[in-house]
Amino acid sequence: MRTGIATVCLSGTLEDKLQAAAHAGFDGIEIFEPDLITSRLSPREVRIRAAELGLSIDLYQPFRDFEGVPPERLERNLRRAEAKFEVMDELGADTILVCSNVSADAIDDDELASRQLRALADRAQAHGIRVAYEALAWGRRVSEYDHAWRIVEAADHPALGVCLDSFHILSRGSSLRAIADISPDKLFFVQLADAPHLIMDVLQWSRHYRCFPGQGGFDLTEFTARVLATGYGGPFSLEVFNDVFRQADPERMAVDARRSLLLLEESVQRPSDAARLAQPAVLAGYAFVELAVEPSSVGETQRLLHAIGFSQTALHRTKPVALWQQREVRVLLNAGAPAGPAITAIAVESSDPSRSAARAEMLLAPILARQRGPGEAELAAVSAPDGTSVFFCRSDQHGGTDQWLDDFEPLGAVAGSELVSVERIDHVGLTQPFDYFDEAVLFYRSILGLAPLESVELAAPHGLVRSRAVTSADGAIRLVLNVSVLAADSDPHGGAQHVAFACSDIFTVARHLHDIGVATLSIPANYYDDLAARYELAPEQLEAMQELGVLYDRSPEGEFLHFYSATLAGRLFFEVVERRGAYAGYGAANAPVRMAAQREPAAATSSA
Amino acid sequence: MRTGIATVCLSGTLEDKLQAAAHAGFDGIEIFEPDLITSRLSPREVRIRAAELGLSIDLYQPFRDFEGVPPERLERNLRRAEAKFEVMDELGADTILVCSNVSADAIDDDELASRQLRALADRAQAHGIRVAYEALAWGRRVSEYDHAWRIVEAADHPALGVCLDSFHILSRGSSLRAIADISPDKLFFVQLADAPHLIMDVLQWSRHYRCFPGQGGFDLTEFTARVLATGYGGPFSLEVFNDVFRQADPERMAVDARRSLLLLEESVQRPSDAARLAQPAVLAGYAFVELAVEPSSVGETQRLLHAIGFSQTALHRTKPVALWQQREVRVLLNAGAPAGPAITAIAVESSDPSRSAARAEMLLAPILARQRGPGEAELAAVSAPDGTSVFFCRSDQHGGTDQWLDDFEPLGAVAGSELVSVERIDHVGLTQPFDYFDEAVLFYRSILGLAPLESVELAAPHGLVRSRAVTSADGAIRLVLNVSVLAADSDPHGGAQHVAFACSDIFTVARHLHDIGVATLSIPANYYDDLAARYELAPEQLEAMQELGVLYDRSPEGEFLHFYSATLAGRLFFEVVERRGAYAGYGAANAPVRMAAQREPAAATSSA
Repeated sequence: MRTGIATVCLSGTLEDKLQAAAHAGFDGIEIFEPDLITSRLSPREVRIRAAELGLSIDLYQPFRDFEGVPPERLERNLRRAEAKFEVMDELGADTILVCSNVSADAIDDDELASRQLRALADRAQAHGIRVAYEALAWGRRVSEYDHAWRIVEAADHPALGVCLDSFHILSRGSSLRAIADISPDKLFFVQLADAPHLIMDVLQWSRHYRCFPGQGGFDLTEFTARVLATGYGGPFSLEVFNDVFRQADPERMAVDARRSLLLLEESVQRPSDAARLAQPAVLAGYAFVELAVEPSSVGETQRLLHAIGFSQTALHRTKPVALWQQREVRVLLNAGAPAGPAITAIAVESSDPSRSAARAEMLLAPILARQRGPGEAELAAVSAPDGTSVFFCRSDQHGGTDQWLDDFEPLGAVAGSELVSVERIDHVGLTQPFDYFDEAVLFYRSILGLAPLESVELAAPHGLVRSRAVTSADGAIRLVLNVSVLAADSDPHGGAQHVAFACSDIFTVARHLHDIGVATLSIPANYYDDLAARYELAPEQLEAMQELGVLYDRSPEGEFLHFYSATLAGRLFFEVVERRGAYAGYGAANAPVRMAAQREPAAATSSA
Repeated sequence: MRTGIATVCLSGTLEDKLQAAAHAGFDGIEIFEPDLITSRLSPREVRIRAAELGLSIDLYQPFRDFEGVPPERLERNLRRAEAKFEVMDELGADTILVCSNVSADAIDDDELASRQLRALADRAQAHGIRVAYEALAWGRRVSEYDHAWRIVEAADHPALGVCLDSFHILSRGSSLRAIADISPDKLFFVQLADAPHLIMDVLQWSRHYRCFPGQGGFDLTEFTARVLATGYGGPFSLEVFNDVFRQADPERMAVDARRSLLLLEESVQRPSDAARLAQPAVLAGYAFVELAVEPSSVGETQRLLHAIGFSQTALHRTKPVALWQQREVRVLLNAGAPAGPAITAIAVESSDPSRSAARAEMLLAPILARQRGPGEAELAAVSAPDGTSVFFCRSDQHGGTDQWLDDFEPLGAVAGSELVSVERIDHVGLTQPFDYFDEAVLFYRSILGLAPLESVELAAPHGLVRSRAVTSADGAIRLVLNVSVLAADSDPHGGAQHVAFACSDIFTVARHLHDIGVATLSIPANYYDDLAARYELAPEQLEAMQELGVLYDRSPEGEFLHFYSATLAGRLFFEVVERRGAYAGYGAANAPVRMAAQREPAAATSSA
């Protein structure tokens, strides 16, 4: 698959966009006209710059409101087109995108549209240019791709073909069957965009909410497979209008875009040789979570881990990192961090860490160069968009060269809690910078093979927070990504990171904390009054929940009980959860209660 | 009109919300249930706090999915309601809002709904509580207010009435005629919200985009007038779900909310005695614009003003402020600013400055206390939400105590340009902080009587910018408000402020700058190639425009030619415009070209 990206997908100047597209490994670009008009580079300079970067200029776009017009308007439109063909000659772009007319007075006459497009193709041909006609979803007379194809077919001109844009087709819910009717030599161009399912004016949806394949709700795999089945050999080019991407770092966004096409390519089982991905290894759960904690928070962090049943079992041989463990649940505590507390790394158990890392690298994840001492394990790790390290580990075989646990010196006598209370890391909650959210979802989806659930919105006391979970099929790896709906997070607590541990008896764990004097996050009494009104819970259970700060949620599949620790420096907290039945959520209904409680400076924790 | 506000309109804790509502002068509040549940205050403490603040608790809301259910569900719902009635007893709230059932399995049976609501009203009545039933626009079986009224009428219970919410009615485009059919003693509550006209799922529209009356596109005046015509004497209470307001300063938002009701009250010609506003004075145009410029930019600012035809004509008697003038166009240059450059004040000519200020104060604009020397004019001024000072002046009568020009000492010989080039301040462009935009529109609309035009979105090179003009009926006062669509403006140039001067011959002005070596903002050649393709402009005109950096726009009403100065420290620039015919816009199509050019660090200005 040849890949391309429209300059409108990326932020910055035209130079910025070209460079970002080239760095991410795209084969070509579409020049979005306003990006050229606002550029100081002449079309010829753009051509040279693109060539230097190894990018072809596959499309000049868009040309609007051309067809279905009265004769005098046609003359003006042809004159306008001639001027654009001259620009394209300079650019070295051989295909122009003509969108179906959206003006209110467009004439409803396919024969006229065919004739006028043929006249345009005649002029284009003289320049060696091809015209790709596309039905916009909100076109006045032509809004379906098969309609555009009938007009093109009737025009029967070698320089006239169609462009298919997945958004315009999938947003209307059009059947994809008619794609097979298009001759491959008349399918001049294919544009790809995904989008979340929204019920709104399709133009606004298109202009603001498009996203890269795999980030939305459209079936791009089927669309792409059907296009490939026609014999189409041209570029698959991303054309994504997205308010957030428009203002994000173009280099990062271009990588995100390219990654989306690598995954798509794999999903249609047509990876080109260059892009063939390593098969995913089996990922079996969390190996560890690493916390970086600044000196002033180390004591409180240790106290909390201890209260939840962890003991310090080993020390890294060369780094200021302690291993805290119970059963196979492991937390690394890095006390040498200048700033914190924060989750700096997550590690997953891989059946083949090297293969996992190789696949991640092919998916454009930056490989982390690790400082390691002589004889220490080579840990396979990549960096997530927000800077979190993602390790691939095998913890079950000691003694190999890549056995990370061998880098730790066990402590002889384990001082601390005998309590075995939590059984695994249930999930990790990572707050994302505002313009990283969709990128992060796609990153974890691609690198860890996690499936995204629906986004939910949480009404935090100081603004809305969007939350989206990505989980492995068996639920062994769960990540929750959070972001402020409107940038500028005014609520740092809504944005705190957390590690949630799963247990099978939350009251025993919570009671233990209570007994040893470690406060859980105090929940307002009004919450329990409401709980009593909503659910028929046993009074003793309600009373114990209120005493211990345990919250409750219920779904048709099961129940969820959970409590929160105090928040370390406003930035990191722990959660302990008990899932009953097949409850698969995260207690989103309770998140606003948590965020409100975490904001209270004085009353953040109950006296236990 | 009694006024109220739902706690969901405001950000923060319940305490924050109560305090903000009281400070802004509301009579009462609606308690949005999640705000109580997340609060540490018991219902009784909320009651006490509200009473201390002089607020009545007019409504407890919302109670959901009550009616149209099978018998066993009814029992559960009644039990849930009993628990809420007990909370309301503690709160001292005597009305509960019941929203029409939205669940997929709601039973379509008005008689059943009536019967079940009657059962609820019976229980409520025992607590001295009234039930206000409201049709949600997305209710499963009941989505129209007249339908809700028929059900209530049939139930015929003294403790059961209806609540009308302007959003649910106006978003559906329902006729307002049936409001007259509702007995005033059965109209228990009225909620007000405006919203921009959007084509989208009504639930999402309601949950994210509501705004205060006068900020959107609904006719709240007609709605309110029809409600008043029924004889309704209860509160008009704002219920606005808005993503931006949710995260903004609650004190500011409460004032904005209250101001919207003051204007609405005036528009229905029913101002209560307390809220009777001073009649607006006639505002005739800009008296001056004041620029604060830090020492390092003073020279360049003076050079630009001089080039555009201004001369320094007077100095303030006691402040480091110079008056720059040509004809009746005045710019005050405050060179004593620590930070700048910025537009710190705008001043409008008022037929009665005191009355204008009195009206502004009644509209909750903060009156500015001015430092003035003995014998200096008392200037009537208020502060806009973003901190810009707004002065009301009379410049035509010297010698009075309030004559601001008398505070300036004329300079004897006017050194400087003899050129008379610009004729008036065409408009002022003010960039707004992200969460101030709707508030600013309503502020200028109310305080200066300016009518808002439609918002437009500008595709700046580093993100979208929203722009909305507010103008006086005769066009003498025009303001353009800009804001980044997604907070965190990564493009300070997109956010620069500006003053635009109107002239009648732009080429003479631009040529003068060129001749004296003052560069205008250099516009890319590609822009002119595109202009040539789009419009049939005379080649000489195009050539002159390109040479001088003049841009062009056209509407059915006329033409617009304009150029930009260099940008002072990236924060302030001047524009010179020529309006031909009845062109009423601002050249929005050219704004992305400007913003891209302004971003270029090296090539920001052409060599003249």
